[in-house]
Amino acid sequence: MTEQAHFSDRLCAAIQERNTPLIVGIDPRTGQLPALIRDHVVPGDLPSVARAFSVFGREIIDVVAPLVSAIKPQSAFFEMLGPAGMTALAEVIDHAIAAGLLVILDGKRNDIGSTAEAYADGYLGRKPLSAWGCDALTINPYMGDDSMQPFIDRCVKTGSGVFALLKTSNPGSPLFQELNCGTRSLYQHVGAWIDSAAAATMGKCGYGVIGAVVGATHREHLVELRNSMPHTFFLVPGYGAQGGKAADLRGAFDEFGMGAVINSSRAIIFAHENRRFANAGSWQAAVEQATRDAIAEINNAIG
Amino acid sequence: MTEQAHFSDRLCAAIQERNTPLIVGIDPRTGQLPALIRDHVVPGDLPSVARAFSVFGREIIDVVAPLVSAIKPQSAFFEMLGPAGMTALAEVIDHAIAAGLLVILDGKRNDIGSTAEAYADGYLGRKPLSAWGCDALTINPYMGDDSMQPFIDRCVKTGSGVFALLKTSNPGSPLFQELNCGTRSLYQHVGAWIDSAAAATMGKCGYGVIGAVVGATHREHLVELRNSMPHTFFLVPGYGAQGGKAADLRGAFDEFGMGAVINSSRAIIFAHENRRFANAGSWQAAVEQATRDAIAEINNAIG
Repeated sequence: MTEQAHFSDRLCAAIQERNTPLIVGIDPRTGQLPALIRDHVVPGDLPSVARAFSVFGREIIDVVAPLVSAIKPQSAFFEMLGPAGMTALAEVIDHAIAAGLLVILDGKRNDIGSTAEAYADGYLGRKPLSAWGCDALTINPYMGDDSMQPFIDRCVKTGSGVFALLKTSNPGSPLFQELNCGTRSLYQHVGAWIDSAAAATMGKCGYGVIGAVVGATHREHLVELRNSMPHTFFLVPGYGAQGGKAADLRGAFDEFGMGAVINSSRAIIFAHENRRFANAGSWQAAVEQATRDAIAEINNAIG
Repeated sequence: MTEQAHFSDRLCAAIQERNTPLIVGIDPRTGQLPALIRDHVVPGDLPSVARAFSVFGREIIDVVAPLVSAIKPQSAFFEMLGPAGMTALAEVIDHAIAAGLLVILDGKRNDIGSTAEAYADGYLGRKPLSAWGCDALTINPYMGDDSMQPFIDRCVKTGSGVFALLKTSNPGSPLFQELNCGTRSLYQHVGAWIDSAAAATMGKCGYGVIGAVVGATHREHLVELRNSMPHTFFLVPGYGAQGGKAADLRGAFDEFGMGAVINSSRAIIFAHENRRFANAGSWQAAVEQATRDAIAEINNAIG
């Protein structure tokens, strides 16, 4: 049944090959599309927006595929267009896989029992193992262990992975995540469960099939959680546009510079809006330069 | 911008009109479809499964529309079929709205900032206000207040609602939800936030645009939360197949028998598998009888 190697081993290999932990978030927004693509959008016509998102996503992939290990499409921006948006999402995923990238779908899915299995079976595992053919999916831990285990079981079977929300990058994340629950905060309880599940599903690289989402805006949490969760790969969003700084990222990595991927979305895919890249020549060239700059900045910061 | 009345007022009116808090979950599974529909499924061909789910969902709606106030499609079972499944989901939603039902999509979505807005804008509000045209959506509270507020703002603008996960019905729900955080459990902290947000967005009926999901398997929690969350409508899953009993439901309701909807999925939509309805004459007649029986059982229990 396993048709691919362990997810974390594949991710580590891809990171080593490209020599960067950077991944690129595909978060299309109509108003920020390059003019050449936005001009084809008919206002109020969702299928025309969906086609534009598909073209935009695939062009981004063509630019970044030689440079990074994975893309992270944000499901919400495709879902908001209705069924046509989901077709565009499928096209973007397929294109990324064909280009040799790993695909981490940011869907933050969660449910229990056979419903959690339905999400896991539908998203995780390259086609034809699953309908969407993703390598990994973000999930939410609130419903408890039996809401995450079906995803983990699926990951073990299909060489795929999940990243559970742990300590997120938004200003409101402390409201529940940092509640003091006995001797530990909620996120520390969640983290302990995740790392235990990761330890039980380790690949050769020492990381499990379940990772954790930890925001780049929490430098001290990155350091603390890297120490307390040695088997857990981190997905770190919030670098770039959300205010996370390169120097703050260092704590996310292990002694070999492994154990985390850093996501940047807007600062890369909308690089044409940045005056710094005004002379790039094309919006694609701006994306390429922004990607190369982010890789250099991160590598410089993490040493 | 508001094109509909307040969501809770619309829900209360629909419950009073049908004289039942029962809603029907649309959770299609290939192996349990009535033979007449399953026979059209080509094994391994996802579009044929999606068409079967669409036919099945719409037939269920035709049977239950005169009897109940709302349906709750489970997004996972449609998503697992890829883009074709999303088209089927849209067809089911459209059919339910046309049949005069409210649609509560069970997607358990969650994200932050503009991504939460994208989910809210895409799902909430009748067409053409949103692409999917739902009346309500389930959401997850783990990411904090600023992850829920964009949904609430959207609900106020469009006459729609959300139900945030609070105390779920699965065996693993205590792992995090019942952690003791100071003087209260996590779910009590979450519940206090939800009820405060509900109080700030009350309709004429006294309930807000944000409700809460509380499992039918927790009788004592239903009573406790009904008392501590007077402005919060409850969505109670787990009745029927998941083991929740009618007598346990009483605590979910206020003194006027209002304030909660009770969801039943499998026990109704797969009634043809139940020997009790073997003489119904058709699978649709079995669904109708199971719905009528559940309505009578719940009304009898809640008095």
